[in-house]
Amino acid sequence: MSHRLDSYFYELIKEDTTGALIRRDKVLFDQKSPYQHVEIFENAELGRVMILDGCVMITQRDEFTYHEMLVHPALLAHPNPENVLVVGGGDGGTLREVTKHPSVKRAVLCEIDDLVISSSREFLPFTACGLDHPKSDVYVGDGIEYIRQHKNEFDVVIVDSTDPVGFAEGLFRIPFYKDVLAAMRPGGIFVQQTESPFFDVNVWQRIFVELGQVFKLVHPYGAAIPMYPSGYWTFAMASMTQTPKAHFDAKRVGELGELKYYSAQTQDAAFVLPAFAAKLIKG
Amino acid sequence: MSHRLDSYFYELIKEDTTGALIRRDKVLFDQKSPYQHVEIFENAELGRVMILDGCVMITQRDEFTYHEMLVHPALLAHPNPENVLVVGGGDGGTLREVTKHPSVKRAVLCEIDDLVISSSREFLPFTACGLDHPKSDVYVGDGIEYIRQHKNEFDVVIVDSTDPVGFAEGLFRIPFYKDVLAAMRPGGIFVQQTESPFFDVNVWQRIFVELGQVFKLVHPYGAAIPMYPSGYWTFAMASMTQTPKAHFDAKRVGELGELKYYSAQTQDAAFVLPAFAAKLIKG
Repeated sequence: MSHRLDSYFYELIKEDTTGALIRRDKVLFDQKSPYQHVEIFENAELGRVMILDGCVMITQRDEFTYHEMLVHPALLAHPNPENVLVVGGGDGGTLREVTKHPSVKRAVLCEIDDLVISSSREFLPFTACGLDHPKSDVYVGDGIEYIRQHKNEFDVVIVDSTDPVGFAEGLFRIPFYKDVLAAMRPGGIFVQQTESPFFDVNVWQRIFVELGQVFKLVHPYGAAIPMYPSGYWTFAMASMTQTPKAHFDAKRVGELGELKYYSAQTQDAAFVLPAFAAKLIKG
Repeated sequence: MSHRLDSYFYELIKEDTTGALIRRDKVLFDQKSPYQHVEIFENAELGRVMILDGCVMITQRDEFTYHEMLVHPALLAHPNPENVLVVGGGDGGTLREVTKHPSVKRAVLCEIDDLVISSSREFLPFTACGLDHPKSDVYVGDGIEYIRQHKNEFDVVIVDSTDPVGFAEGLFRIPFYKDVLAAMRPGGIFVQQTESPFFDVNVWQRIFVELGQVFKLVHPYGAAIPMYPSGYWTFAMASMTQTPKAHFDAKRVGELGELKYYSAQTQDAAFVLPAFAAKLIKG
């Protein structure tokens, strides 16, 4: 029976008990960098699909939910985000959303893996357009090092990373969070993707414990991202002073052009977690 | 490579372009009824899994989100739901949630396929407990026929069905909706599962068009259900008079015992759809 699946990419989770299948209709790119295995293929339904070390990073069909939800809640929680740093995010999708905000003067991206940047520029123009925006400033280097060398500079710091294992693990730990805090101007907001509470309970809880040891205010929120494990993905907005709504102005949402996932009402709704997940954090 | 997948159940969608994998760790039940193929197996992570005609219906791990979200928004939108009808739902999970409401005096279930009921009673006790609740009244028969024969009787009618194809299709069509309206008492609320807007756009839009031709007020809402395609599932609450919040009383949520997905805040948050989905309905 499973010969039918010979042409499929599959990603298994939870000790291989369950996972996702995506048919590889045409392989476009397949190379290894010093950091990871980068694969890009075409799928008739999902469009271009980028896989990093066997995990789905982007599909053309649903990347909008991840990128809109990583960026807009934090930028709209800040009264006037001018300088924004993105750590990771070499595909450019996060920059694409950041640079939609009229208040943003400079959007810096620090991506460790040049192969992600170059392959995205070649095969994922729908996200890579963000890399070439006039406000964007793209560096290739270690985000942890970059943050350490910058103080009192950014209004919003965004971590757009792979899962908290291997070279990305340090982006989910207290020493990094302390450096982020020092790199931000007063009133700064930090946001990062924080996995799914359905299948990564222990990692999920730990991230919020460590964030809470550095930031006074930590607000988890969620979004539907079909091609990530469980389809329900979460994010953390962390700050010393800022809440999601204190500076929120629905007029600013209108200035962003047409969005596909985020709307003004999302700024409330996304912060209501499933009861079991809210309890894991309050616990 | 794919010999690794020999022991997996897989469900492909969108012309087989993408899908889900679940390892069959132990097959518990495998029979065909006049209506469908019923399979139940055990998975180390997801617990008991019920498959109907090749589609995941229930996993022990995440069935709570579907059942809580199918039932509680509608019952809490109604000021005093006493008589509730469930069409389909032979596994009992919907009855389990309905009978948690102190106001409910009688919860009738009409399931077309006795094999779903009997196999659930044997292998899915965590949902089948709803079938044997003192308030529950279980019939085996065609829900479309049952609705036609009852007038002015129910406060809430819930359709807990398979996808709108084959024998379940009639449950998503105007003639059935008219019969539902006649079967409800004044102020009645109808609710049904309505697929995912990510991968079933055309069917999804059509359901809401047909609902809107019978009911004055149609409120779509969504929930994260990891094991259904896309992980984001929607529901429709339809009525001539009722809105989600007019009669909502958070005290009644407290009377339901501990819930895993639904909380009082969900009654607002779930009704905020992704922007693209909201736009598909508003047209």
